[in-house]
Amino acid sequence: MFAPVYLDHNATTPLLPEVFDAMSPWLRTQFGNPSSRHEYGRAARRAVDEARQQVALALDAHPTEVIFVSGGSEANNLFLKGAAASLRPGLIAVSAIEHPCVLKPAAQLARQGWEVRYLPVDAGGRLEPVAYTALLAQRPSLLSIMLANNETGALQDVASFASEAKGSGAWFHSDAVQALGKLPLSFRDLNFAGVGALTVSAHKAGGPKGAAALVLDKRIELQPLIAGGGHERGLRSGTENVAAIVGFGLAAELARRKLAETPARMRKLRDNLEFGLAALGASIFAVDSHRLPNTSYFAFPGIDGETLVGKLDRAGFAVASGAACSSANPEPSHVLQAMGVAPEIARGALRVSLGVGNSETEIEQFINALRVTVGSLQGLAAIRAA
Amino acid sequence: MFAPVYLDHNATTPLLPEVFDAMSPWLRTQFGNPSSRHEYGRAARRAVDEARQQVALALDAHPTEVIFVSGGSEANNLFLKGAAASLRPGLIAVSAIEHPCVLKPAAQLARQGWEVRYLPVDAGGRLEPVAYTALLAQRPSLLSIMLANNETGALQDVASFASEAKGSGAWFHSDAVQALGKLPLSFRDLNFAGVGALTVSAHKAGGPKGAAALVLDKRIELQPLIAGGGHERGLRSGTENVAAIVGFGLAAELARRKLAETPARMRKLRDNLEFGLAALGASIFAVDSHRLPNTSYFAFPGIDGETLVGKLDRAGFAVASGAACSSANPEPSHVLQAMGVAPEIARGALRVSLGVGNSETEIEQFINALRVTVGSLQGLAAIRAA
Repeated sequence: MFAPVYLDHNATTPLLPEVFDAMSPWLRTQFGNPSSRHEYGRAARRAVDEARQQVALALDAHPTEVIFVSGGSEANNLFLKGAAASLRPGLIAVSAIEHPCVLKPAAQLARQGWEVRYLPVDAGGRLEPVAYTALLAQRPSLLSIMLANNETGALQDVASFASEAKGSGAWFHSDAVQALGKLPLSFRDLNFAGVGALTVSAHKAGGPKGAAALVLDKRIELQPLIAGGGHERGLRSGTENVAAIVGFGLAAELARRKLAETPARMRKLRDNLEFGLAALGASIFAVDSHRLPNTSYFAFPGIDGETLVGKLDRAGFAVASGAACSSANPEPSHVLQAMGVAPEIARGALRVSLGVGNSETEIEQFINALRVTVGSLQGLAAIRAA
Repeated sequence: MFAPVYLDHNATTPLLPEVFDAMSPWLRTQFGNPSSRHEYGRAARRAVDEARQQVALALDAHPTEVIFVSGGSEANNLFLKGAAASLRPGLIAVSAIEHPCVLKPAAQLARQGWEVRYLPVDAGGRLEPVAYTALLAQRPSLLSIMLANNETGALQDVASFASEAKGSGAWFHSDAVQALGKLPLSFRDLNFAGVGALTVSAHKAGGPKGAAALVLDKRIELQPLIAGGGHERGLRSGTENVAAIVGFGLAAELARRKLAETPARMRKLRDNLEFGLAALGASIFAVDSHRLPNTSYFAFPGIDGETLVGKLDRAGFAVASGAACSSANPEPSHVLQAMGVAPEIARGALRVSLGVGNSETEIEQFINALRVTVGSLQGLAAIRAA
């Protein structure tokens, strides 16, 4: 079977083979409901508990701080709406470059009496510290600033921002979905700095779709988004997705064990890629910012990103023109808009996001394919212009 | 490996082997995000679309009426809170025997200005029609009445209740999680009668944990519980759990194809079981009500249900003392309380729920084990009393 080269790991990652193997028994003979009080149930409960410990260890958190949910979008909605429901309506601030699963709940809160502010970023996709400090003076109740952006890969110094907000009484959340497996993550340290909650997701780091976690400081009181049987300390009811949680546990453990190796390897491949991109005349977004080691986001003048994705797909390379989750939306990326990138450049945006399975050869092949594709599209553009 | 006899299918069912096989490629080579615009993504999108058609066909619904979510608890919360957020606070009525994932969100709405009424049931666990008619006169905005109870198996004539409410303008929801695969379900017919939304879940019918659906009349406007990238017609954001959805699709299709066979087979086994139970002196709850074909809920005078579950577990039989989801709760079942069962009897409740894999031999073995266990516990009780 022909398998295209996969360069879209920020959208989702292949499930690691050892993770599939670990999940498999929980889909076959070990099918119990963890709440059941017989051997099938107890075995499932032990598996969920062990996965909770694995996730906690990978994130340097306590197992009781790990709330399992179905995905990163749910974790972000749980924090924002769950916290808002525990507080009087006030001021909430989120960065302008958050994922839609932070921006949309914030917009829903605006209809419930909350005032929403969008924190600006600079041309490199990094939060403007002066605007942030000014915002803090207005005493927000809730803050959500992502650790790593899914499009540009730009990192925010979340610990420093949380620390600055520490005296204000605001609850500080960070969406770290893109950071797991690519950066060291210590909830202990972040929490000490003032971060109260962190979102991570299995399928962005070699785990399965269907499992994620909100890591939560126990002093923060949330109302559950999904109320019912009282699972996950009453914060998320519903029969646990045992197999997915088991897979998440192992993926988190593997990410932790390979943290000395994987990011460095990705960074080397990404540097090779960007050397080639520069030679082809690409503009690389957030290139001078601290970034994830695996992400490259760029554009060629005059070439449409969607068109390029389609051509590369037919040439055997899977890349993204923007965040996969909003690919249904033909608008230019809100992240690039917030960075002040002109719409005609933003519409050319192409994202390559590398994974543990990618090789140097694949990067070379991709650069060659890009040279041919971009060359032919630029030729067409020149003919049209003539 | 020693595998205990599984008689707890209302808590969760074994994944059907053919469902595991159908899911497997979507956990291995076909790992794309359905929102991605390359071949990995398009393949995943086609798989989700096909599963949506399978679920729709099994439920006699239109594919665009099927909203995939992560579980039955999420579907019930989505309907209740999503509808409430679209309406002015008013009156909501739910049956007193609903699952906690209906009762708890209703209680949350009570703190947001809604008035909540609990519809009473009779000694057989069936809704009191006179109380229901009286409630309708107070013009509720939201109604939720489960189709089949998870503990007793008692069925409600949901179409008739919905029909009676039809002129009132109330939105009528029914939790049909326990009905899938055990009864014919036509959303078309229920919707014609006035049911606006139906909850079903994969893992109660041979499918995987992590996939469920809210089947929803498109005239009902819900606010999303999980907002973000706009998946599922904007009603449930988050990367689709492709493998689980594929499994749900096939499980629903298999349930539909075997509907002439499975319920009849279960009913025969259940009748054999209850013949044996009666001979042992058990009181069977809701025995004269229309019930699910697979469920038997009973008690022996003076014997504690939890104790019996533990003894039977050690003897190799997996049964429940109450709803698995609230097994952490030592209170007697709220369902039995609503039926007017005395607490000392309710504490003895034991539930056997059969599945497609159970055999006549297993039922005979179970009755024999029960005879021995109940005999020894009654002997102990007699000694203690002496």
